Amino acid sequence: MKRYRLADLSQVEVEQLCQRNPLHDPEAFETCRLIFTAVEREGDAALRRWTHQLDSVWIDDFRVAGQEFDQACQTVEGRTLESLQQAADNIRLFHSRQQAPRQKVEVQPGVTCWRESRAIEKVGLYIPGGTAVLPSSVLMLGIPARLAGCRQISVCVPPRPDGTVAAEVLAAARMVGLNRIFKIGGAQAIAAMALGTESVPRVDKIFGPGNRWVQAAKRLAFRYGTAIDLPAGPSEVLVVADAKAHPGFVAADLISQAEHGSDSQSVLVTDSAEVVTKVELELARQLDDLPRRNLASQSLQQSYSIRTADLEGAIGFANRYAPEHLILNVENAHVWAEKIESAGSVFLGPWSPEVAGDYASGTNHTLPTSGAARAFSGVSLDSFVKKITFQELTPQGLSLLAPALQQLATIEGLEGHRRAVTVRGKESGVGSRESGR
Amino acid sequence: MKRYRLADLSQVEVEQLCQRNPLHDPEAFETCRLIFTAVEREGDAALRRWTHQLDSVWIDDFRVAGQEFDQACQTVEGRTLESLQQAADNIRLFHSRQQAPRQKVEVQPGVTCWRESRAIEKVGLYIPGGTAVLPSSVLMLGIPARLAGCRQISVCVPPRPDGTVAAEVLAAARMVGLNRIFKIGGAQAIAAMALGTESVPRVDKIFGPGNRWVQAAKRLAFRYGTAIDLPAGPSEVLVVADAKAHPGFVAADLISQAEHGSDSQSVLVTDSAEVVTKVELELARQLDDLPRRNLASQSLQQSYSIRTADLEGAIGFANRYAPEHLILNVENAHVWAEKIESAGSVFLGPWSPEVAGDYASGTNHTLPTSGAARAFSGVSLDSFVKKITFQELTPQGLSLLAPALQQLATIEGLEGHRRAVTVRGKESGVGSRESGR
Repeated sequence: MKRYRLADLSQVEVEQLCQRNPLHDPEAFETCRLIFTAVEREGDAALRRWTHQLDSVWIDDFRVAGQEFDQACQTVEGRTLESLQQAADNIRLFHSRQQAPRQKVEVQPGVTCWRESRAIEKVGLYIPGGTAVLPSSVLMLGIPARLAGCRQISVCVPPRPDGTVAAEVLAAARMVGLNRIFKIGGAQAIAAMALGTESVPRVDKIFGPGNRWVQAAKRLAFRYGTAIDLPAGPSEVLVVADAKAHPGFVAADLISQAEHGSDSQSVLVTDSAEVVTKVELELARQLDDLPRRNLASQSLQQSYSIRTADLEGAIGFANRYAPEHLILNVENAHVWAEKIESAGSVFLGPWSPEVAGDYASGTNHTLPTSGAARAFSGVSLDSFVKKITFQELTPQGLSLLAPALQQLATIEGLEGHRRAVTVRGKESGVGSRESGR
Repeated sequence: MKRYRLADLSQVEVEQLCQRNPLHDPEAFETCRLIFTAVEREGDAALRRWTHQLDSVWIDDFRVAGQEFDQACQTVEGRTLESLQQAADNIRLFHSRQQAPRQKVEVQPGVTCWRESRAIEKVGLYIPGGTAVLPSSVLMLGIPARLAGCRQISVCVPPRPDGTVAAEVLAAARMVGLNRIFKIGGAQAIAAMALGTESVPRVDKIFGPGNRWVQAAKRLAFRYGTAIDLPAGPSEVLVVADAKAHPGFVAADLISQAEHGSDSQSVLVTDSAEVVTKVELELARQLDDLPRRNLASQSLQQSYSIRTADLEGAIGFANRYAPEHLILNVENAHVWAEKIESAGSVFLGPWSPEVAGDYASGTNHTLPTSGAARAFSGVSLDSFVKKITFQELTPQGLSLLAPALQQLATIEGLEGHRRAVTVRGKESGVGSRESGR
């Protein structure tokens, strides 16, 4: 990790440290454009060709059959199923509390307005994979989709070279009630869900993490009119640690992020020079026998620590960085949490590792990266619904608003708008004083 | 209006009737790309040049000065100010009820998760204009931005050929506490807010309606990493009317939408042949002396009515169309409202014209168009905040999750994740049975 001291950095240098992985990626975008055009023209045939070219496997029937599910569920270990079940229960409980109650507001007498949630009918979930096995993403997207009441939930998973999908992914899907699984990966999966093909239905919104091509494809889908959950990129963690933080915990949290890939970012911000040194020693020690040591080392070499004068400065930097995951390994973490303005998900105190949120505490792990946390929230139940406004006016309610409606229509030069009020005033007999204006 | 009967239409024809104004607009996109590149390279100089070219006015200082505000507020009529104030009060009341309470969930003993809202720090509001005067959009975007607590709110309004901005727009801005107003319009305004220039600060999220160039620019901004509120296009209304609906009300509502522009859509869906005929007669009568008659007529010529066998069929069509505005001018509108799945904003019964929501009932008028209501909500307080998840585990809470966390990390092949748990198990003395695995 590179070492910096906040006091030595100019504003511009701080800004540069907060920059990472620009979302604007013209090269990946160009590839995606080719794929979208092919899928738009040729449907399944294009999907098969690109799958063969990029995933080295020829798939005749994209949809996972019932017996593949049955077999998969039989091969998964009992304790894996139990672990998935515990995670699923917690995720379901936390997300179920995000249901918004219908609350009618009588804004003025006879003018009643309210909002109601309605599920997005058709959603598509992308689960990255290939050689990796990520059943946790199935839970994180599938559970809120089902809770929201989405009627048609498609899932795309890249096929492995032998044409199968990991048994754990299928078991997790069945556990949460998803059975429309397609063996398609990468940008071609996003194109299929955005445009629709013979096999894959078009969806209204696409969710899920993925590599740079998947992310570019999601932004392209957005241009075609499909909603997307988040502009997501490589994963990242920022740990704020004070002098009392356990260096072994901090190092383990940084490594658990770094092992995701060489483009992951792990940032340490602390007001203690001693913590920097001790964490560096711990990193070296813990990396020593890590299976994914090479990836984690590469990632940590591109990462950095920042020493600040005090914790106030550390929190200030965290807010500018707007990390996907923020660990507050400090005393009185609650007090500091109040000052957090931008982050995807925040972990308070020494006993809340990011990995808890990655898998099983109940919060969602689909979170904004690359600074998107300044404007985006992570995935939640809200992501799977629309909140529709409703209003009902009585004749008296309309008459109370009528003078303002007519005046504003007049200054906006919209006489037809004004008449939609006056035509009613004539019939209701209320507020006719205004209606003849 | 063209006349259709739902029973005569194939699935494909219904699909085509629901298609409008494709969001994918390569021509506008190409112009926007030129503008973005210029603004990125040259900042204010590019803004001045494009403003001169597109709005025929040379602006030296984009920001509206304090004395321009003072003068504007003095010239606006008293009853306009009162109308804006009534609208502002209602909008503020309805949006203030959208604040989500902090609700902690103890998912398992010692595992506590919750969400908190945080304002997006820097937002940009686009108010269309030029020759039109749209103070209502200032209220609809400015009030929730202020309620949410956004710290830096920029507003862009196109300058008129004399270099001024409508007094009503400035008065509305001052009324809701906005003072950072820039005289910049079109795609160059969106580029300025997305990229930042010497005069205009870069923002995290851009809001507001606009023409096709503004909309294309917003989608391009999204590719650069700036969040946007909605992919919005031309305005539209769908009126569901039963045999008892007053034809004059229905016609007035269709016209109030049609007068926005020739690309607006006004759709009538009814189970009564008589209503179709009577509304057509009313349309002709009401159009006769409408100031914006030409625009409204053009728009209505491209619009249509659909007769359905029953109201169930009418609601079914409305859900497929997913209109920006949906008027349920039917008996028992509440019952039918329950069946609405996709719409921006819904108006119940004969006394709730769209114009109430356009201006003053309290609901937001920034709504998803062109079918985007299938996946997007209109602007609300939620649009100006992030909902950040927080979690705090006790040593006991972590030990309850530890076996599942370790098992899931193991099957996902992420040993570093597993160790972030075990390193803590060793220290806490809790759950050490698992930690040595």
